[in-house]
Amino acid sequence: MPYTIEQVKALVREFPDFPSKGILFRDIFPIFRHPEAVECLVDHFVERIKALGQQVDVVVGLDARGFLFGPLIAIKLGVAFAPVRKRGKLPGEVVSVTYMKEYGPDVFEMQADALAAGQNVVIIDDLLATGGSCKAAEDLVAQLKGNVLLSAFVISLVGLEGDKKLKAPVYALIEC
Amino acid sequence: MPYTIEQVKALVREFPDFPSKGILFRDIFPIFRHPEAVECLVDHFVERIKALGQQVDVVVGLDARGFLFGPLIAIKLGVAFAPVRKRGKLPGEVVSVTYMKEYGPDVFEMQADALAAGQNVVIIDDLLATGGSCKAAEDLVAQLKGNVLLSAFVISLVGLEGDKKLKAPVYALIEC
Repeated sequence: MPYTIEQVKALVREFPDFPSKGILFRDIFPIFRHPEAVECLVDHFVERIKALGQQVDVVVGLDARGFLFGPLIAIKLGVAFAPVRKRGKLPGEVVSVTYMKEYGPDVFEMQADALAAGQNVVIIDDLLATGGSCKAAEDLVAQLKGNVLLSAFVISLVGLEGDKKLKAPVYALIEC
Repeated sequence: MPYTIEQVKALVREFPDFPSKGILFRDIFPIFRHPEAVECLVDHFVERIKALGQQVDVVVGLDARGFLFGPLIAIKLGVAFAPVRKRGKLPGEVVSVTYMKEYGPDVFEMQADALAAGQNVVIIDDLLATGGSCKAAEDLVAQLKGNVLLSAFVISLVGLEGDKKLKAPVYALIEC
């Protein structure tokens, strides 16, 4: 049974006080219990990306939940998928960026041959919160001389103003 | 341009002494630079799963690289995808299992409502090494009274005999 995008949104569940007191966790995994819901979500992102009117060359997905959507979107667009991972997980020559988290620095990496200079990129992740990890992905793409056309998320916590850290436009299916 | 499965295998790159001296790391990410190669790989797994001749209800993927393939395979089969993640990452009621790694214990979890008693499961990950994490996934599925029909991997390091730890049959595209 085909899903509407409103039905997909309604599958996201809320868990108060997870992983810690005061945090309202939004769980996207119920979407994956319904293959037609995943297809609807992917088609929705692909339409938004195509509406940019520019050739996309590489979909970049953030470890780990960006891995759920990134390859699906890349295949539908007929383009490459490249991962952003924490330090030490990607072999070969890498570019890296240090990003400050609440409890200290974290290092993200991309493989140096994951994209070519001048290629257009869309960044995919499940959640835009403070924007730190997406900002790190933007920096990695910039080091490889790629252009970020858009960063797309399932959920954006708009009160945290993560989009203000980012250079490229942001799209989120759910703003809360 | 369509890929053959032999061409897909040839995309896997070897990196000696990564992440540490004496380890030969096999990098699957070059496959993701070619959307037709990913489609070929997914179709290959789907054929192997359909050849089991049994209804599959849920594809279970291990964090993080199982997330790259799991949803693609689940959608092609028209079934649910459910994640196995390390402790503290999945909200709500979970089942958990402790698994001994080289440097101490690690805990894996699944959401308790990710599958129903009696459902048939295929476990997906990129690499079968010592088999510890796949064994943990098998244990989680068993706690939820599911049946593992098959565990499927891109690569199996056959010398480590990971398959001997597992109850269900194993399929790997590349045995080395």
